[in-house]
Amino acid sequence: MHSLKMYRATGGICKLQRVFGAAQCRTKVLSVENMNPHVKKMEYAVRGPIVIRAGEIEEELRQGVKKPFTEVIRANIGDCHAVDRLLNDPNYPSDAKERAQRILNSCSGQSIGSYSDSSGVRVIREDIARYITERDGHPADPVDIFLSTGASDSIKTIMKLLMTAKDGKDRAGIMIPIPQYPLYTATIAEYNAYPIGYYLDESNTWACNIPELKRAIKEARSECKPRAIVIINPGNPTGQVLSRQNIEEVIKFAKEENLFLMADEVYQHNVYAEGSAFHSFKKVINLDPAVKVMQLKSISAKLCSSVSGQAVMDVVVNPPRPGEPSYDLFIKEKDFVLGQLKKKAEMVTKTFNSIDGISCNAAGMKPDAFYCFQLLEEAGICVVPGSGFGQVEGTFHFRTTILPPLDKLTGMMEKFKVFHENFINKYK
Amino acid sequence: MHSLKMYRATGGICKLQRVFGAAQCRTKVLSVENMNPHVKKMEYAVRGPIVIRAGEIEEELRQGVKKPFTEVIRANIGDCHAVDRLLNDPNYPSDAKERAQRILNSCSGQSIGSYSDSSGVRVIREDIARYITERDGHPADPVDIFLSTGASDSIKTIMKLLMTAKDGKDRAGIMIPIPQYPLYTATIAEYNAYPIGYYLDESNTWACNIPELKRAIKEARSECKPRAIVIINPGNPTGQVLSRQNIEEVIKFAKEENLFLMADEVYQHNVYAEGSAFHSFKKVINLDPAVKVMQLKSISAKLCSSVSGQAVMDVVVNPPRPGEPSYDLFIKEKDFVLGQLKKKAEMVTKTFNSIDGISCNAAGMKPDAFYCFQLLEEAGICVVPGSGFGQVEGTFHFRTTILPPLDKLTGMMEKFKVFHENFINKYK
Repeated sequence: MHSLKMYRATGGICKLQRVFGAAQCRTKVLSVENMNPHVKKMEYAVRGPIVIRAGEIEEELRQGVKKPFTEVIRANIGDCHAVDRLLNDPNYPSDAKERAQRILNSCSGQSIGSYSDSSGVRVIREDIARYITERDGHPADPVDIFLSTGASDSIKTIMKLLMTAKDGKDRAGIMIPIPQYPLYTATIAEYNAYPIGYYLDESNTWACNIPELKRAIKEARSECKPRAIVIINPGNPTGQVLSRQNIEEVIKFAKEENLFLMADEVYQHNVYAEGSAFHSFKKVINLDPAVKVMQLKSISAKLCSSVSGQAVMDVVVNPPRPGEPSYDLFIKEKDFVLGQLKKKAEMVTKTFNSIDGISCNAAGMKPDAFYCFQLLEEAGICVVPGSGFGQVEGTFHFRTTILPPLDKLTGMMEKFKVFHENFINKYK
Repeated sequence: MHSLKMYRATGGICKLQRVFGAAQCRTKVLSVENMNPHVKKMEYAVRGPIVIRAGEIEEELRQGVKKPFTEVIRANIGDCHAVDRLLNDPNYPSDAKERAQRILNSCSGQSIGSYSDSSGVRVIREDIARYITERDGHPADPVDIFLSTGASDSIKTIMKLLMTAKDGKDRAGIMIPIPQYPLYTATIAEYNAYPIGYYLDESNTWACNIPELKRAIKEARSECKPRAIVIINPGNPTGQVLSRQNIEEVIKFAKEENLFLMADEVYQHNVYAEGSAFHSFKKVINLDPAVKVMQLKSISAKLCSSVSGQAVMDVVVNPPRPGEPSYDLFIKEKDFVLGQLKKKAEMVTKTFNSIDGISCNAAGMKPDAFYCFQLLEEAGICVVPGSGFGQVEGTFHFRTTILPPLDKLTGMMEKFKVFHENFINKYK
């Protein structure tokens, strides 16, 4: 029961995993045989087998194995960093400094200016594994955790492994929700894969309906080789939170269809609706160990993600605990930020729902794009048309964030209302 | 006279550029017509035309154009950051705090925890342009500068544009030095391109010989469509520094052969040999503006590089100046670091040159890999075999960095000498 998770180092969390095939004898969803042959062909010397062996020897030394030397000198990659000594400042709370020192101790040259292992700083991955274990009540292994430069980097890294390196009907097909975050369609286009769109059910709080999944994969079989399903939970841009039952249905579907399951759970802390709760997809999951080796080789070609970003990730998964000097300030700030987001979510929903529906027609531009351009030109509000995320034919949406400060957002919503009424009067 | 440069945000610098075709009527080296069709197909809504227009409107407002609003509210992407107020600490020198404040002022929410533009924080790109202008005596435009997550990310981004998306003889060919840094071969393999290796001349301080370039491209024409030449200067792993004359010859060659020129100049501060000096490749350079739009779209699919890394880049290109409070400490530390590197370069060269040559044969493993594994197992020294970088048939090398601290490196060299003598005695 292993799992592969990739954490974006800049704050949110993205988990990517696969479901076991239904029968042992069936071809694995992602194996060294059926993975992207171009990634298999890659070699990356400075992080190759010699360096892997160096890590093993270091571990042997820690376990007391006698060697003709007491430490490994790593002269394989370059780190020009001197030790940082700015941690003696009395103005910072002691627990914050201890955390920082602990991370620094785990970095080469005790500096976050150095390269880390390709998969990330060891203690940070340990903290992440502990965080997941506590969250899910299922064990997580630091060896299965890879730190990346943002969710985009994680998603691209895993999707790359699934490519067939073939054209036409032999292209890899990736199931993605509609609406989806445009990173997915962009990456699928860049990799010459086939997007298998499945519609989320707007009339049912954007739920993920299994009959719709079945329709989508059935229609796509003549166009591509379906290989994976992307689930974004909580949804982006839709914000829906899947129920536990819905998650179980999706896992069952992926198992039946032999699909690699990519669960994008970046927004797990952003659940505002009454009665909603976040459930992780991490249940019965695995990644072929031989593919994991290839994946590690593939990310080695970029050395490592920004170590300062990795350190920030540790703050997310290992926050101040009750009794520590930073705890009260941390909770105060966290509650403030999440509380503001909740207020803004409610306020924006309420305002939008109080405005009459819209139906318009604009020559030369999709109606939603036309609407958004007008909104920008007339009211200075920059939102994104729904056509960029995908939407049911004949329906039109836009995506707005709720992140401007509350007072600015309140003003924005007032301007929005005036703009919308004028717009409807003009184009009705 | 524009130029495209990509700066890795974590310290070094990587420049990528192309040379004008010989005649106006000739097909452009990299145009929207002949660029990677998969990148052309990509769409990325949250950073699309609406957001570009929002930036233009902000610029119009700055220039005093009257609008029905005074600022653009960007509700297109998410930033959950509050303003950081830790810059009042009297223990840090005033100029360092001013620099930090200036960068923060240029970030959304005055926080480096926010997303920047896809191409990087504006003031940092301005500082880089000024740095290049001062270095080269030629103007550089911030609009042509893209900040990336390390040199690897830059190189992959540009190389991707050059792909033909075709197989066999229609694949893109990329000229790379042998030995080369393995990132290039790895990326070429991942993109299913064809590596056109040209040998550096070891007997002539690893110079880049034009007849060898001509040989390499001639032989490769039956295997691929040659599209670009990679020059690493100063060399990695070879450390050579190209003379100005050699650079002019390479530019002429690229022009004649209609090749995109990628100049990797990450190590421009690491020149130690007497009489050597770094010259930038930036002379007559350009990038098709329509391709630049595609490139910007392509990097938009990853939002932006780590903003903390970008801030560090600013320190590289905008260091303390004489008279500022931090200047003396900065120069002391910089001179110490570069001085140590120079000492280490001399010491390592001297020791290696004092050791007798080696010629060995080991079953089941390339001789250089065998040597490196033995070195690791017996002496705990981790270096990389030359076969991972490419080398002339029948010759064997390894690559070591000189970055461990001087005392550790001295001990390493002593161990190395003992190991090598034992190794030769055992396998001669």
